[in-house]
Amino acid sequence: MAELRQDIVTGSWVDVATDRALRPTDFGKPCEMTTPDDIEKCPFCPGHEIMTPLEVLAIRPNDGEPNTPGWQVRVFPNKFPAFQSGEPTLESEPLFPRRTADGSHEVIIHSPDHNARLATMPPDEVELVLRVYRHRYRANAEDAHVRCVHIILNSGREAGASLEHSHSQLFGVPLVPPLLQQELAGASWYHTRQGKCVFCRMISSEMDMLRRVVAKNRSFVAITPFASKLPFEVWIVPRTHQESFDMIDDTQLEEFALMLRDILGLYNDRFGDVPFNYYIHSAPTDGSEYPYYHWHLELIPKLTTMGGFELGTSMWINVTTPEHAADLLTGRIEKGMGAL
Amino acid sequence: MAELRQDIVTGSWVDVATDRALRPTDFGKPCEMTTPDDIEKCPFCPGHEIMTPLEVLAIRPNDGEPNTPGWQVRVFPNKFPAFQSGEPTLESEPLFPRRTADGSHEVIIHSPDHNARLATMPPDEVELVLRVYRHRYRANAEDAHVRCVHIILNSGREAGASLEHSHSQLFGVPLVPPLLQQELAGASWYHTRQGKCVFCRMISSEMDMLRRVVAKNRSFVAITPFASKLPFEVWIVPRTHQESFDMIDDTQLEEFALMLRDILGLYNDRFGDVPFNYYIHSAPTDGSEYPYYHWHLELIPKLTTMGGFELGTSMWINVTTPEHAADLLTGRIEKGMGAL
Repeated sequence: MAELRQDIVTGSWVDVATDRALRPTDFGKPCEMTTPDDIEKCPFCPGHEIMTPLEVLAIRPNDGEPNTPGWQVRVFPNKFPAFQSGEPTLESEPLFPRRTADGSHEVIIHSPDHNARLATMPPDEVELVLRVYRHRYRANAEDAHVRCVHIILNSGREAGASLEHSHSQLFGVPLVPPLLQQELAGASWYHTRQGKCVFCRMISSEMDMLRRVVAKNRSFVAITPFASKLPFEVWIVPRTHQESFDMIDDTQLEEFALMLRDILGLYNDRFGDVPFNYYIHSAPTDGSEYPYYHWHLELIPKLTTMGGFELGTSMWINVTTPEHAADLLTGRIEKGMGAL
Repeated sequence: MAELRQDIVTGSWVDVATDRALRPTDFGKPCEMTTPDDIEKCPFCPGHEIMTPLEVLAIRPNDGEPNTPGWQVRVFPNKFPAFQSGEPTLESEPLFPRRTADGSHEVIIHSPDHNARLATMPPDEVELVLRVYRHRYRANAEDAHVRCVHIILNSGREAGASLEHSHSQLFGVPLVPPLLQQELAGASWYHTRQGKCVFCRMISSEMDMLRRVVAKNRSFVAITPFASKLPFEVWIVPRTHQESFDMIDDTQLEEFALMLRDILGLYNDRFGDVPFNYYIHSAPTDGSEYPYYHWHLELIPKLTTMGGFELGTSMWINVTTPEHAADLLTGRIEKGMGAL
């Protein structure tokens, strides 16, 4: 199980695993050459369903029994959950506040194919993954412990994936995390002062300038944000105002899949099979309304390493301007042509 | 040159390099096997002083000309500074606030020996490095643009070092970074309510319990903090109240060197030649008093990789409890003996 511990100085909560007392030798070398996992041993491959916790959802085009092969997308609780409901309440000591890490933590397997990648899967298979996101988002939002649903993908060991077989993770978080709190506060402030959604204004301005627009379709626009924290960061933002990811409709879902696949394809074109992270920022699921918020997905290829400046300040140094990143991703500057 | 850009939603400032329009091929693979740099090409080795900007300080035990060999510790401005004074002011657009990244950015070479490491250097050489920290801290604090002096070490490529030759970096930052702001706010709040320094209270409590104490000497105590954000994180905290690093006296400096060397030695004993980061948290240098703050050094071995959860929430999941980390570092659990 895990617990939440609060830093008495900063007030920040950290999720600390308590049942995995790891030894030094238990730490994988995140930076050693990754070799594809042995398919025979992969717990995410069909036929190995017994190696995972029992599934909570699986898409089986031809029906079939739960926890058997025949699925296209499969969801189960994480074997080592960062959040989990039903644990007893922990006692705090005066300077050392703690609480149980209530919530949920699920794994979403994208495909039965061990080597499948979202960038190269057929668009309808990517759409199915996103449809499962929406389903599990809604299901977890019902949990009274869950205040935020945070869906992420870590692709490649250098981006934090512990297994190669392509999968996402859903966290049902019992608090509103700091970065989302900051976005909510800023968006609320802007909305109060300007009477508009700050994200709507931003994408409207970006669409006028086109300087940082990487792609667009009827429902979504992809930009390299003005204050990108990391090189080649891309945000995919719905063009019509929508506060929460679970409000996405079927038409948008289809276009979201196409856009996501395209951006991952651009990364692959430019950087080869680059490790990356993405995550969806969406309004809290605590029953309140957040009309000033606007959900979006943030994508970051793993090209650099965080150092002591970022760790010690929570401030980013980005060695590539987003304008240059947009030029390279869109082909306005050709690959290898160098700086403008 | 670099500029500061503000995220219009969160209000956070990002330092964006504008003169290094990097191509995809310019990104080193942080995760490929590191081979020691070629000493012949190392710009930080004696005899190669011409490959760096002109030095601002060098310790030459036998005197000698600036920018020539014979130094023990050498300091010069970073060739690609994240902060630099004297640039013109940038124009902001309505949704896209920006300003010049005023300040300073220096490189501190620890030793003429290309392969020297703080953990194994003689204690008096480590002390000399820390003495140079203090000197450069004070010099940069004089700069009217600098509101905070942030000293860091990235050791090993996986921890963000771009060159192997052991060196630290000093950032003269023109604002108070978010993490320090949070610490200042929390420490101020505690001090107002309790009439005491929260760090003094915390280390006093830790010294009573001993559960998370890794080492101590007359001037310093090293703990694995209760809400450690990463596995085997260690804080070295002065035992007497002191708000700012530059207040360290010569006796403390000697004991700080011994403690730092010891903790790095413990990392090496447990993890081999592990990459790591450290940074010094110290009160702002803006002329105000911060009697409620207490400087300290935070050390983090690079054992895990940040993923989409941390990137997207600014919240940490730590897979090792600090109590277990303290047990392993102090030898209360033997290496390889496994979980208690």
